Amino acid sequence: MDDKLFLMIPGPTPIPERALLAMAKAPVGHRSSEFARIMAEVSDNLRWLHQTRSDVLILASSGTGALEAAIVNACSPGDRVLVGANGKFGERWVEVARAFGLKPEVISAPYGQPLPTDAFQAALAADTDKAIKAVIVTHSETSTGVLNDLGTIAGYIRAHGEAVSIVDAVTSLGAANVPVDEWGLDFVGSGSQKAYMIPPGLAFLAVSERGWQAVERSRSPRYYFDLRGYRKALKKNNTPFTTPVNLVYALQVTLQMLKAEGLEGLFARHTRLRDGTRAAIRALGLGLFAPDDTFASTAITAVIPPPDIPCDKLRATLKKNYDIVIAGGQGEMEGQIVRLGHLGFVSERDVLTAIAALEGALHTLGYDGFTPGSGVAAASAVLFG
Amino acid sequence: MDDKLFLMIPGPTPIPERALLAMAKAPVGHRSSEFARIMAEVSDNLRWLHQTRSDVLILASSGTGALEAAIVNACSPGDRVLVGANGKFGERWVEVARAFGLKPEVISAPYGQPLPTDAFQAALAADTDKAIKAVIVTHSETSTGVLNDLGTIAGYIRAHGEAVSIVDAVTSLGAANVPVDEWGLDFVGSGSQKAYMIPPGLAFLAVSERGWQAVERSRSPRYYFDLRGYRKALKKNNTPFTTPVNLVYALQVTLQMLKAEGLEGLFARHTRLRDGTRAAIRALGLGLFAPDDTFASTAITAVIPPPDIPCDKLRATLKKNYDIVIAGGQGEMEGQIVRLGHLGFVSERDVLTAIAALEGALHTLGYDGFTPGSGVAAASAVLFG
Repeated sequence: MDDKLFLMIPGPTPIPERALLAMAKAPVGHRSSEFARIMAEVSDNLRWLHQTRSDVLILASSGTGALEAAIVNACSPGDRVLVGANGKFGERWVEVARAFGLKPEVISAPYGQPLPTDAFQAALAADTDKAIKAVIVTHSETSTGVLNDLGTIAGYIRAHGEAVSIVDAVTSLGAANVPVDEWGLDFVGSGSQKAYMIPPGLAFLAVSERGWQAVERSRSPRYYFDLRGYRKALKKNNTPFTTPVNLVYALQVTLQMLKAEGLEGLFARHTRLRDGTRAAIRALGLGLFAPDDTFASTAITAVIPPPDIPCDKLRATLKKNYDIVIAGGQGEMEGQIVRLGHLGFVSERDVLTAIAALEGALHTLGYDGFTPGSGVAAASAVLFG
Repeated sequence: MDDKLFLMIPGPTPIPERALLAMAKAPVGHRSSEFARIMAEVSDNLRWLHQTRSDVLILASSGTGALEAAIVNACSPGDRVLVGANGKFGERWVEVARAFGLKPEVISAPYGQPLPTDAFQAALAADTDKAIKAVIVTHSETSTGVLNDLGTIAGYIRAHGEAVSIVDAVTSLGAANVPVDEWGLDFVGSGSQKAYMIPPGLAFLAVSERGWQAVERSRSPRYYFDLRGYRKALKKNNTPFTTPVNLVYALQVTLQMLKAEGLEGLFARHTRLRDGTRAAIRALGLGLFAPDDTFASTAITAVIPPPDIPCDKLRATLKKNYDIVIAGGQGEMEGQIVRLGHLGFVSERDVLTAIAALEGALHTLGYDGFTPGSGVAAASAVLFG
């Protein structure tokens, strides 16, 4: 049915109607006092969401831009950096580090498995010369559905004392607990089209006081992503280059919604959505690509379909018959998994609907390894107790 | 009156209602076939607007991001580049060049005066070793209202044979004739909140075949702005990182509107708006900061108020009494000039209204150096013939 598509991909995520309508307002000037008032409110609420008293910068870019900004502002050519890589995004940060002349040392894990925290501990403890300048960690690895143990790794980084932490929180910020100040995180990047519940086009970067010291030391070339300009502008509730005003209108609205739900409510909802989804996937006899519940993303669940059901057919059937869009695998995971996003403006009802549709699609495609209704029942038991 | 503000600043510019409403649509996935169809249409129309058969890339950034992308992709550290600077934006590109280790040689002119084309000719002719790798020219200098003679300078760059041209067309593309292929321009950057008639958040960069050869040669570090990824993605009607889907929805609509008006109509309208504005400013006895009509921007007119009328008071009066927002001077021009934007979704009626309001504001502030109605009459004679 036209205009009936419902996105359950890991971004863009569904947008509340009031945020869509907020965007459909004539922009004011990005240097006006009216806009500064909006930016002041938005900045306060971003600090609340990040659980930080430091700065949260707004960039006109995708989330990748925010991570590149962190990397070039924290490090200089030749710097040793540790990078965790257990999926496509972790690997991307290795590429960015190399592109800017850093020397990345990769701590990896197989796709679907969490990063080995002990390897970070060992590498940082062995670095008695304090040559490691940054540690880059992807919190929720969007390509596999793994939630890495950022809290533990952050402790090792703090113990090292020299290296700053650079965190890809693109699909965790707002969908999982990321207590920036408590964990002493230095650079935390995220993107608007995720748990922020607005369309793509804005990125966010929280920077700690220690982070700012690294920014001052960096010798990497930068201009558009030179964070010093963003900090200066932030003091005037502004950005150094033109702000995407209409996206900020939407953000103002959704941050108010998130605040009304509260951090506990927000994280509990995403945890419920994840747990309900995983219970259903298990009840249907399908595989969970991230098998360990402790390290399962609250933003996205990667599912291994039955052997006889191609991923693209499953996705096409869900789209054609139910107007539900789920994602496929990225890169080498294409054809191996499908990914069901449940972050942002997603309710228990949406997950239940998706599971019901998944049951129908599996049936249509000839899979009979489950009792009809068992996925819905399992999800329902978790979601609605 | 609430919600009555009308922007006559050089960006954001007014947005047609249908573009605002197009943004208020739930986003589809940026990797979906539905979105690829929209991107295909948008790309075709961008090529039409740029008068080119080459690629026009879409970036999630401000216009500054597009210019930085051009500079880092066209040049390598140590490269000699010529940069024209007769305003804040020209000076910005000198800063960007320095930030990335290039050796900029500045060809300047006083604010309000056009760049001396003969200086470009002489510098390029003297460079028999072909050491100059790029020439950076701001077409419409938004900070002063000067339209530099890009066509002539482009001819000298072509004659040089080695240097590529990098053009800041942020407020000229769509408001003035920029025949990219005919002038052999290699990198042409612009931004969505100008003549494109949509909110800020997208930037555009046209790249010629010669430009692409420079991109392949460049040794500058880059990732988010690595144009090779954008070119590869464009072939699939996509972008390498997440596209601001809703801004593209709006762009699809406004490009259709621009196409319906036609290039000739578009340029003629902007020329009329400029000429009408300038006639009125003269009739009111005020100063034109860019005095030479031949080199006056079709996007913005910088006005020198009467000596006794402070710029901020004039702007505040226009805003308070008439809900019309005009811009002040930037940097060292603050307090010296006001800038009246007339690009994008601006009609003859809007300019007439602005002049009528300006007359009223001047009267309120005690300026009596004009016959009431003379500005409106002068504008009207030009605008409506």
